[in-house]
Amino acid sequence: MGVSGYGGGELARILARHPHAELVYVASGTYAGKPLASAFPSLYGTPAGNLVCQKGDLAECAAIADVVFLAQESGAAMELASAILDAGKKVIDLSADFRLTNPDVYQKWYKMPHTAPGLLKAKAVYGLSEWNKDAIQKASLIANPGCYPTATALALAPLLKENMVEPTGIIVDAKSGVSGAGRAKNDLLYKYAEANESVKPYGLGGIHRHTPEIEQTLSVICGTEITLSFTPHLVPMTRGILATCYARLTNPKMSVEAIADVFAKTYADCPFVVLRPIGDFPATKDTLGSNYCHIGVAVDTRTGVVTVVSAIDNLVKGAAGQAVQNMNLMFGLNETSGLEAGGIYP
Amino acid sequence: MGVSGYGGGELARILARHPHAELVYVASGTYAGKPLASAFPSLYGTPAGNLVCQKGDLAECAAIADVVFLAQESGAAMELASAILDAGKKVIDLSADFRLTNPDVYQKWYKMPHTAPGLLKAKAVYGLSEWNKDAIQKASLIANPGCYPTATALALAPLLKENMVEPTGIIVDAKSGVSGAGRAKNDLLYKYAEANESVKPYGLGGIHRHTPEIEQTLSVICGTEITLSFTPHLVPMTRGILATCYARLTNPKMSVEAIADVFAKTYADCPFVVLRPIGDFPATKDTLGSNYCHIGVAVDTRTGVVTVVSAIDNLVKGAAGQAVQNMNLMFGLNETSGLEAGGIYP
Amino acid sequence: MGVSGYGGGELARILARHPHAELVYVASGTYAGKPLASAFPSLYGTPAGNLVCQKGDLAECAAIADVVFLAQESGAAMELASAILDAGKKVIDLSADFRLTNPDVYQKWYKMPHTAPGLLKAKAVYGLSEWNKDAIQKASLIANPGCYPTATALALAPLLKENMVEPTGIIVDAKSGVSGAGRAKNDLLYKYAEANESVKPYGLGGIHRHTPEIEQTLSVICGTEITLSFTPHLVPMTRGILATCYARLTNPKMSVEAIADVFAKTYADCPFVVLRPIGDFPATKDTLGSNYCHIGVAVDTRTGVVTVVSAIDNLVKGAAGQAVQNMNLMFGLNETSGLEAGGIYP
Amino acid sequence: MGVSGYGGGELARILARHPHAELVYVASGTYAGKPLASAFPSLYGTPAGNLVCQKGDLAECAAIADVVFLAQESGAAMELASAILDAGKKVIDLSADFRLTNPDVYQKWYKMPHTAPGLLKAKAVYGLSEWNKDAIQKASLIANPGCYPTATALALAPLLKENMVEPTGIIVDAKSGVSGAGRAKNDLLYKYAEANESVKPYGLGGIHRHTPEIEQTLSVICGTEITLSFTPHLVPMTRGILATCYARLTNPKMSVEAIADVFAKTYADCPFVVLRPIGDFPATKDTLGSNYCHIGVAVDTRTGVVTVVSAIDNLVKGAAGQAVQNMNLMFGLNETSGLEAGGIYP
Repeated sequence: MGVSGYGGGELARILARHPHAELVYVASGTYAGKPLASAFPSLYGTPAGNLVCQKGDLAECAAIADVVFLAQESGAAMELASAILDAGKKVIDLSADFRLTNPDVYQKWYKMPHTAPGLLKAKAVYGLSEWNKDAIQKASLIANPGCYPTATALALAPLLKENMVEPTGIIVDAKSGVSGAGRAKNDLLYKYAEANESVKPYGLGGIHRHTPEIEQTLSVICGTEITLSFTPHLVPMTRGILATCYARLTNPKMSVEAIADVFAKTYADCPFVVLRPIGDFPATKDTLGSNYCHIGVAVDTRTGVVTVVSAIDNLVKGAAGQAVQNMNLMFGLNETSGLEAGGIYP
Repeated sequence: MGVSGYGGGELARILARHPHAELVYVASGTYAGKPLASAFPSLYGTPAGNLVCQKGDLAECAAIADVVFLAQESGAAMELASAILDAGKKVIDLSADFRLTNPDVYQKWYKMPHTAPGLLKAKAVYGLSEWNKDAIQKASLIANPGCYPTATALALAPLLKENMVEPTGIIVDAKSGVSGAGRAKNDLLYKYAEANESVKPYGLGGIHRHTPEIEQTLSVICGTEITLSFTPHLVPMTRGILATCYARLTNPKMSVEAIADVFAKTYADCPFVVLRPIGDFPATKDTLGSNYCHIGVAVDTRTGVVTVVSAIDNLVKGAAGQAVQNMNLMFGLNETSGLEAGGIYP
Repeated sequence: MGVSGYGGGELARILARHPHAELVYVASGTYAGKPLASAFPSLYGTPAGNLVCQKGDLAECAAIADVVFLAQESGAAMELASAILDAGKKVIDLSADFRLTNPDVYQKWYKMPHTAPGLLKAKAVYGLSEWNKDAIQKASLIANPGCYPTATALALAPLLKENMVEPTGIIVDAKSGVSGAGRAKNDLLYKYAEANESVKPYGLGGIHRHTPEIEQTLSVICGTEITLSFTPHLVPMTRGILATCYARLTNPKMSVEAIADVFAKTYADCPFVVLRPIGDFPATKDTLGSNYCHIGVAVDTRTGVVTVVSAIDNLVKGAAGQAVQNMNLMFGLNETSGLEAGGIYP
Repeated sequence: MGVSGYGGGELARILARHPHAELVYVASGTYAGKPLASAFPSLYGTPAGNLVCQKGDLAECAAIADVVFLAQESGAAMELASAILDAGKKVIDLSADFRLTNPDVYQKWYKMPHTAPGLLKAKAVYGLSEWNKDAIQKASLIANPGCYPTATALALAPLLKENMVEPTGIIVDAKSGVSGAGRAKNDLLYKYAEANESVKPYGLGGIHRHTPEIEQTLSVICGTEITLSFTPHLVPMTRGILATCYARLTNPKMSVEAIADVFAKTYADCPFVVLRPIGDFPATKDTLGSNYCHIGVAVDTRTGVVTVVSAIDNLVKGAAGQAVQNMNLMFGLNETSGLEAGGIYP
């Protein structure tokens, strides 16, 4: 559902080459009646490209699919999820509808009341694959994480969980490619001539919608209330998020090797987290088109600040790739099925 | 051999997910002793990324491999090919060494004598997959086509072969991303700050090395000597070639439908050639990371000029992808094995 | 009028530093009541940035200004021009309304009837500064040329006028930055994530609106009816047009030196036309932010084709800069006043 | 001296249109004997472009110039400055040679002994125009600030000076276009295909050379030793620096209006500092080609963190523009002479 957006298109691309999945139904209001390749010309010549977009009949879709991916704007999924679940099928929602556990917080940040608070409480599982694997495996309704929260939580959770850093005063300075704004928005900001050759901060002062999601995720993981400063920036590239995270070491004399060791242990069984050698730091290009999250760490011994840099492709690990990773977990498949490929370079 | 260049890296990426191939040996002078991921960080976390680059011992490589891909600068392959062939293994050369059938023409354009003219004459098969399939299937030494010649020949060959256009006065205006210059060149031209926000023509007046390759290929296909004007341009993007080809119709009243029909018939059995609907034209983005070549056609009835536009990813269909397609043909595999995926979008 | 578009903003930037001009009135529907800097943040801190945008009262504007620049969408200028002229003031129109001398041709290409055919016939002067200087100096109503026609006409006119090339079979392959589409259009095509990392042709088959303008301009200059093939491409950069023009030499043995000589003589008194040394070709970056047009020529002796490459900044020489150059001519100022600066590099 | 680098070229561009300066001598080892336009094609057609580059005879240059701009690599200026000063002429050095007041600190960071410590101590004045105006006006030797230090100091100095923020725990996350690396470096990092479509951090852990310069500058201004965390990032654009600076408010209840007020007062007489309206933040595009520094401020009341964002063009206010601003001050000219123009947009 919502296949003609960037998240939906990326799902189609990934599922099309998944060895254990078959794409049986794609829906898009804009492209209804047309082949999927008319929305994504990159699919011409492939079987996925020949699929005809449907208007989006939920019953029809739920009848033939084992899992339905919802990739629409906020507000749609909370209207649709229960019908799919009632039909005995699973749901993976790429929107924000089931991410915030408190419906009041949802209303505050997304400016609309939550219409499925029961489902939110009883069924929704936050799909940060590396940190919630057990729950995801048993879930029928996944709230797939936001792109910024994925990059940030993977970078900060290990150190917060092990009390290596102070839980206050954390700064997250994130840089995103323009596809993060989605395909439909008509804001001047996202036009080529305005976004090109420019870096621009937005959502300053803690007003970006991903702030409560990041704080909730880290608070749950480390068991204490986290409040941090999150500042996103728009960068002239199509894909990619780089999150540069700054925190004060609880022990200012901690070595970078010890920090790296915490990451190595935490993510030992996580095939999609790459810890870069000490002194080496990821660029977003290293993750282009892949589901990997690259992490690099540095310690500034003069200031006692540890810097954790994480890079992801916002449309893959930050959206569709992690959704498929969660599908793999939910259906007992190999976690990496259909996602093993490294990124495109250059 | 030469795995740390862009062509070599793309080969590693494609072969790593090929269902019937295994990457057993990678060589790079620059990265010898280091894992392949140190050359291409996008491979960290994947098996291919862990392969240690060798200095390039031909005997060792030929002993364990069934086919050796040569991805070095011009001049290297003609020194190495015979030893591999003598060991009973196949060779796919991505350089220009075996593309021009006449060694004198090679010397004229590549400023060095050809040192393996016997091999060139007796063994080398030009690997334009769509037009030379039978010969490729039986070949042991493939001259993998250049990126511009691939885009141009696929666009012009059908009309020339069917005498739909005049064989003289053809204009090819090509636009390439900067990766086409390779990874090693230090020319100011390829630095970010110089190439960005700029379009620049080069090789004007028929002096680009791909001119004789294009002319040779089209002359062979259509059975008459072709001389055309080829002008490449450097465009601020990483990957992609767009070839806009202009030719005079032999019958100026020919409809665009008739032209499209020729393409449809010619490429009916070619899984990687996509003919776009009439009135729709490819962008290079439509082929990013894929082995597909997209073609669109237009007729200007006022001038009797037919325009054929072809788009490829210069590193895939224009290099490593076509090399793997040729490997598939040489080893009796499905032509599309490991290459079926559509491109990345956006 | 229409100051908040890209053409209008560039006019403001240029006039703000013009030694003999003063910007006294700026109008924009979108930004009415706000300072000009809110539309163009690059003007914060400058006097022009503090000017408050007006809704656009023609009488008020005409009362205080000596010349009114119209920088709106097609269709607006033909409604406004006569009132300004009646008030005894001059008009420079950056839209297409007064470019095509035949109102029927205008209606065919711009899909609306021309509502000021009298003015078009009696007053409008085509403002290609280098080729129409005498008429411009005496004019009260200037039809400022389109960006593609400026680049193309400057490249082809000298050779056509001197009969150095055949008037048939000419191919113009043009590449434009995305700002050429204007600031207001909401087409998916112009969004960052779609336009970036891609080259895309459009308007193929002779259907781009600038085709009749180019043909009319060259026909007038060389005294014979010209029909040519014009194909524009969208390139991932903000500014710049490169026109690569191909024509058959009337004498295929003509030397490139002789060709260059024609250009040198034709443009001897044209301060904004730069003829590059033989063997050197312009990139669009060479003209970024400046009013210069750079031209390079090549001869392919094998095919008898001459290639002329011209580069301009589409918003300066292709719009606002040429408009100011025409203003200088109309008011007896030095042609280069306010426009002498070279481009920004890199 | 060193005119063919990006800093030198930008000096030529700015001085060429300066109403009270004349460019009389340009030197470049690489382009000696050639016109300046061969190094910067954007200057073809302009008087500056016709200037022939000299090898760099210091005596000859000092004889005819009133002020010599040194725009070479580190290490050159400390060898050349005294001769120019001895000839009674002024020096503005764009390298790092005279920025750090302690020669030992210089040696530590620039890996070579300082060979003119006497000059450094007795004559060198740090040319941060807005904060050192009096000393600059009397100086004969200016150490023109680095690009990152300029953006950072303008953002942080007002709040530190007024004790609005804690002097510890400050985080500076800076993003720079690729031209900041200079024109000569051959690192893979700066090639188009590697830098494009990627954000990459570098110099992490406090090891970037601009760290001591930033700390020294802020320490002098606020009268207390400042140690901060500075992390630069390479962003895919040609020009521009955005510095996002995070500091803890001494009074966490401080309003954003009060913070903005401090900036407004501090920079009341600084024509090149633009304080953006509250809630509005600068993009680097807003400063493209201009000498302005745009500043925006935000307060996160939940965390007590103030964020100050500053944007400059790294080659103008971050190099050549500030050098000319300093020249204006040294020679008693209007501070804004030749620099008033707003940036190019888009």
